[in-house]
Amino acid sequence: MANEADDNTIYIGKKGTMAYVLAVVTQINNGAKEILIKARGRAISRAVDVSEIVKNKFVTDLKIAKIGISTEEIHPEEGNPLKVSAIEILLKK
Amino acid sequence: MANEADDNTIYIGKKGTMAYVLAVVTQINNGAKEILIKARGRAISRAVDVSEIVKNKFVTDLKIAKIGISTEEIHPEEGNPLKVSAIEILLKK
Repeated sequence: MANEADDNTIYIGKKGTMAYVLAVVTQINNGAKEILIKARGRAISRAVDVSEIVKNKFVTDLKIAKIGISTEEIHPEEGNPLKVSAIEILLKK
Repeated sequence: MANEADDNTIYIGKKGTMAYVLAVVTQINNGAKEILIKARGRAISRAVDVSEIVKNKFVTDLKIAKIGISTEEIHPEEGNPLKVSAIEILLKK
């Protein structure tokens, strides 16, 4: 799923869900036809919340075009590499 | 995605990730050709972890056949209905 929406990728982190909802809705209102939502670890649940809220409440003609899950390796500055699950959700108008 | 794997559905809850990994691997070793993993709310991240660990470490010929997300309404005994995000991950041999 790489490169499908490089310029319209939103990384879900530790902010409140509605901050990311607003970011997605803003990009769509600015003309984006697709948005790629990415998250790792515990933020995965929030990525699903963001996608569902945008689709159900704000942009009802939005479709969930693709969902992918994967495992990524993180290399912290100290200590051993960590494996963490990741999700990508591609939203399309 | 309903009814595709009724007898082989595993609901991810609050136990440790490896408890669910073991449940999935056991069902596959007992002959199941597909397993449907379901989770809601914060357990969504764990559902992704379980799928990735089973696929990468235990049953390497397993494929992620389908992933769906949705919003479910929960009706608590007291108080207002709550909306919660849900995920379904269909694993196939």
